[in-house]
Amino acid sequence: MLNLSSDYVEGAHPLILDALIRTNMEQLPGYEMDSYCASAAQKIRMACECPDADVFFLVGGTQTNETIIATMLRPYEGVLCAQTGHIAVHESGAVEYTGHKALTLEGKDGKISAEQIRDYVSSFYADSNHEHMVFPGMVYISHPTEYGTLYSLNELTNISEVCHAYHLPLFLDGARLGYGLMSRNTDVTLGDIARLCDVFYIGGTKVGALCGEAVVFQPGRAPAHFITMVKQHGAMLAKGRLLGIQFDTLFTNHLYEEISKHAIEMAESMKSILHKHKIPFFLETETNQQFVTLKNTELTYLSQHLIYSTWEPVDAEHTAIRLCTSWATDSAKLEELDSILANMP
Amino acid sequence: MLNLSSDYVEGAHPLILDALIRTNMEQLPGYEMDSYCASAAQKIRMACECPDADVFFLVGGTQTNETIIATMLRPYEGVLCAQTGHIAVHESGAVEYTGHKALTLEGKDGKISAEQIRDYVSSFYADSNHEHMVFPGMVYISHPTEYGTLYSLNELTNISEVCHAYHLPLFLDGARLGYGLMSRNTDVTLGDIARLCDVFYIGGTKVGALCGEAVVFQPGRAPAHFITMVKQHGAMLAKGRLLGIQFDTLFTNHLYEEISKHAIEMAESMKSILHKHKIPFFLETETNQQFVTLKNTELTYLSQHLIYSTWEPVDAEHTAIRLCTSWATDSAKLEELDSILANMP
Amino acid sequence: MLNLSSDYVEGAHPLILDALIRTNMEQLPGYEMDSYCASAAQKIRMACECPDADVFFLVGGTQTNETIIATMLRPYEGVLCAQTGHIAVHESGAVEYTGHKALTLEGKDGKISAEQIRDYVSSFYADSNHEHMVFPGMVYISHPTEYGTLYSLNELTNISEVCHAYHLPLFLDGARLGYGLMSRNTDVTLGDIARLCDVFYIGGTKVGALCGEAVVFQPGRAPAHFITMVKQHGAMLAKGRLLGIQFDTLFTNHLYEEISKHAIEMAESMKSILHKHKIPFFLETETNQQFVTLKNTELTYLSQHLIYSTWEPVDAEHTAIRLCTSWATDSAKLEELDSILANMP
Amino acid sequence: MLNLSSDYVEGAHPLILDALIRTNMEQLPGYEMDSYCASAAQKIRMACECPDADVFFLVGGTQTNETIIATMLRPYEGVLCAQTGHIAVHESGAVEYTGHKALTLEGKDGKISAEQIRDYVSSFYADSNHEHMVFPGMVYISHPTEYGTLYSLNELTNISEVCHAYHLPLFLDGARLGYGLMSRNTDVTLGDIARLCDVFYIGGTKVGALCGEAVVFQPGRAPAHFITMVKQHGAMLAKGRLLGIQFDTLFTNHLYEEISKHAIEMAESMKSILHKHKIPFFLETETNQQFVTLKNTELTYLSQHLIYSTWEPVDAEHTAIRLCTSWATDSAKLEELDSILANMP
Repeated sequence: MLNLSSDYVEGAHPLILDALIRTNMEQLPGYEMDSYCASAAQKIRMACECPDADVFFLVGGTQTNETIIATMLRPYEGVLCAQTGHIAVHESGAVEYTGHKALTLEGKDGKISAEQIRDYVSSFYADSNHEHMVFPGMVYISHPTEYGTLYSLNELTNISEVCHAYHLPLFLDGARLGYGLMSRNTDVTLGDIARLCDVFYIGGTKVGALCGEAVVFQPGRAPAHFITMVKQHGAMLAKGRLLGIQFDTLFTNHLYEEISKHAIEMAESMKSILHKHKIPFFLETETNQQFVTLKNTELTYLSQHLIYSTWEPVDAEHTAIRLCTSWATDSAKLEELDSILANMP
Repeated sequence: MLNLSSDYVEGAHPLILDALIRTNMEQLPGYEMDSYCASAAQKIRMACECPDADVFFLVGGTQTNETIIATMLRPYEGVLCAQTGHIAVHESGAVEYTGHKALTLEGKDGKISAEQIRDYVSSFYADSNHEHMVFPGMVYISHPTEYGTLYSLNELTNISEVCHAYHLPLFLDGARLGYGLMSRNTDVTLGDIARLCDVFYIGGTKVGALCGEAVVFQPGRAPAHFITMVKQHGAMLAKGRLLGIQFDTLFTNHLYEEISKHAIEMAESMKSILHKHKIPFFLETETNQQFVTLKNTELTYLSQHLIYSTWEPVDAEHTAIRLCTSWATDSAKLEELDSILANMP
Repeated sequence: MLNLSSDYVEGAHPLILDALIRTNMEQLPGYEMDSYCASAAQKIRMACECPDADVFFLVGGTQTNETIIATMLRPYEGVLCAQTGHIAVHESGAVEYTGHKALTLEGKDGKISAEQIRDYVSSFYADSNHEHMVFPGMVYISHPTEYGTLYSLNELTNISEVCHAYHLPLFLDGARLGYGLMSRNTDVTLGDIARLCDVFYIGGTKVGALCGEAVVFQPGRAPAHFITMVKQHGAMLAKGRLLGIQFDTLFTNHLYEEISKHAIEMAESMKSILHKHKIPFFLETETNQQFVTLKNTELTYLSQHLIYSTWEPVDAEHTAIRLCTSWATDSAKLEELDSILANMP
Repeated sequence: MLNLSSDYVEGAHPLILDALIRTNMEQLPGYEMDSYCASAAQKIRMACECPDADVFFLVGGTQTNETIIATMLRPYEGVLCAQTGHIAVHESGAVEYTGHKALTLEGKDGKISAEQIRDYVSSFYADSNHEHMVFPGMVYISHPTEYGTLYSLNELTNISEVCHAYHLPLFLDGARLGYGLMSRNTDVTLGDIARLCDVFYIGGTKVGALCGEAVVFQPGRAPAHFITMVKQHGAMLAKGRLLGIQFDTLFTNHLYEEISKHAIEMAESMKSILHKHKIPFFLETETNQQFVTLKNTELTYLSQHLIYSTWEPVDAEHTAIRLCTSWATDSAKLEELDSILANMP
């Protein structure tokens, strides 16, 4: 059955598997002290145009989010984020488990604005009771967001400025970063992100790797003894090579860009098919996630032919679903979608 | 340079890589809901002779230890363990980070005894101040231990009995379990472990996998909503297939046993070579880790030809080092060791 | 200067000080094992019409809230509350510090409804991703609320029923409980609260004591080894007598009721004075806290004669303030208020 | 029945009760913003010869220990202490509950040495695996210790020097500080402690107050937003006056010294009585706690006439017990002890 439910339903890009096989018998030190981690980190620094960045490799998204947040905040601080932010909704309270509050702002299609941050922080300090409250200590945004939307360079610059004005580190969750960077109309580059954020990560799991997220700190922004805290959070791989080799491959010959670009092209084709069949969009995006609204009766048919993600109920008779593309989506799959929709009663 | 420092210096057993390649394009659900996780879990249940066990797959050892301990303890409880236990020494305080104290017993070569547990617990309850103290809430042992030593079936049975008498779950860290099971003189089987422990894990990372630990709970012993807490600890893989496929391979055609048995055979050969060269043992074990004592002057030579693990200073002039074998150790490597030692001044 | 800013600006009711003096030289065991704690607990059980309740004494409100919540929740659970709830806003993230998320509902004048709870919980379980989310694990309400409002018996009964239907413990923060019980039109008794809630506390600090909150658990609802966890949270007094003697006094000859009734009478008089001077109410309540809206220009005058609590900005030119009565408020103080308002330009 | 079990079996020194009565009707701001807290803090600064110290008032010992430790440590750090330290044994794991490990050193009569600290820290950094371990982040000592023993000025100076050499804050638990300062042969003054420690506290609960511990930070050593974290730990009193008034009284006219000196005199008399009756000492100290060894058969008699603290079993037939004096111990009580011992079979 066709599966467009997510961008992590297949394994890894073949070049990654090739690299794992090629390097398999090399004897390498553990705990990310190997040469592939070093090489990958260096390639990422170059791609970020930030030669002094600190780069670390973690295994998955929730883990990366909670480790970064817990290690950058002081105990009296919480993290500002959209109320739809992944950390606020779909991480089983991992941030709270580390002792910190997610301070939520009402987002718009997954995004928050510089103005909202400014208002929150200035109201906070104006409140005479603020010493009895949780201090805003950093800002979390995702790009693309959980809704597949993107910040413009202008929006991102404004957020960065307000963050720095208030000494709030800006943290960008890039679990699907590639799809944002390769989106057709974006004006945001990897260099921009590295320049504007104190810390962000380049998602591997959802962009062609088996697992892995590459965390990039601006020079001097990595918490002291970050490695020890990564270990403490259970986030360090003994065979760190698994992460190093994957990211070294992704950042060789622009593979990360190619994978992402391919998924965007497939997403644009998928959008055309959806339009052709007059499927109403719940949210049409410029990245690899598309959200459409279907009648529940239509879903009875669809679910026999297509695996999708149920997003949220729209009303008693309609439901929003998500369809994704990835490096592994090809024309054959989209033709199958076309045919399934053509036959929808 | 020859590297015998650990059992995780190479990649994965070739059959695991084959399986990853073979299944790469299959579209599978995430978060360990895929058919390979199901199949691996079922094979493990059979290997454990425990058809109703609950099996979960986590990524690494520290993560597995802290997740199991944190989810099985109540807040007023700590975990009893040897003072040399991995959780007490080499996990950056991951257990304490979850709010729990490691209650250490003085071990002997990494092991603790049923009697020590009984004494600790009965003294605890006899102490009129015990309500102001940390309650012993579970027992952690490793098998093989951090020193490569093994419990006998009799010792393990006694520990299990005292644990059950005091309603303390018994948790066995099997990061290197295969080497224990395939050790030449052990009388402990996987079925024994599954029967005697409330929870244990079958280590993958150090026994031929790229990553992964398979957690086995006796029927009814898994904490409610364990999956949600695995997510909360940042320990759930989106592409859970990576764990399922590896363990499915390891438990097909006895690969896990074969890998372990090979490492034991190589360890026995390595021991012969060490004896031949009259290298004094710091601790001679029946598993894949061997500990020898060398003069610091000898290490100056050795470190130019061999990568080993520095274990601990013995005195001002001697140091204990660790040498390990694994699935990837072959005769050629041992011959190289032989030759290096032969030339040691 | 007249101070109506809160109900904790004076010391203790004189009968409490008398009791402290009278018992001062008695030699008593520590840690709440003394006869006064036992006597106070027994009197509270009787007043609650719950002879088998478990009663504990803690020192302050935030401490009591976080200790109860942290010890009743499992790690995967959060606490449902109004977004204006004290635990969600004014406790410096104490609940999150213990690892749990406050799951906020949009309240109305500080209150939430049975229907909101039902909707939240049923939506939660209907969400196919709920295993990646924080489970609703208990419900927190305050009575009176932070806005001085009260639940009716019907509302409280409905909330209790929905909580029990979903196996969610209901926790009532009674930091100002006396003022709720003695409010003129309430139909809620202490017995009702003890019957409908799994756990609640009878506030001492804000109702005539120097410090102290009496926690009442329905029979069988207190977490095992609660005392040890109270100690762990730093919430146990060595000289527990300080709490026992105070609550024993408060629950002798209906002192707790008398104190509360007096404050309500004073609040009703204060309301008359405010109405007489045509001060618009931001929120007029039936308890000891009243909220009025003043022009910022008026506050310039007022702040020279009266200490009040700034509540929140209403618009650019108006601010809501809070005025409170207590056991120590007398006619003279209210006459002073009358005179201050009479002279307000 | 005579009770010498502890120094917190009576209420408060009468002058403290007088002050509470005298100030009862004053209207004061809450949360330690009142004039008595300010005055007490100033008097403490003067007594400490440290005019720029930061002084805060907390409620009890365990709370104070865990709040200071949790707010001064970074997440990757633990606290070095004697294995008999109160935080390591009798606080229900409160330090671990905040996420930090107590790194224990083998003490001698409750004390640790500068040399032990130096050895621990230098071994730690020499260990090539130390990034996988808990970093020593501060040092906790108690003075008097849990065994009633005292550091000499020389010992304390050495500890302070090694702490500063390694950038480890030195924290002194002074729950019974007065008895240390007034001990007959001590050469350590309050000024010395304030000079040598980064933070310490002056115990109130066990030295004549109803409750309360005064925390003193060297200038610049208090964590940013300490007040917010005190609130977060549930350690802030709404009626902070209760602490301010008590400490203001204790530090007026040398009351704190007088109380302590009286207890020391009573302890010396008690020691004479114990010697006279040839009761063997388990540990004879220069402070208000004395430890003697009795036959279990003697305890059967004794426990009918005297309330004492059971300390620890010495052997199958003997038990060590603790006897304490305080501000409330008088000659009549000691005569009663004399008579009880005279009649011991």
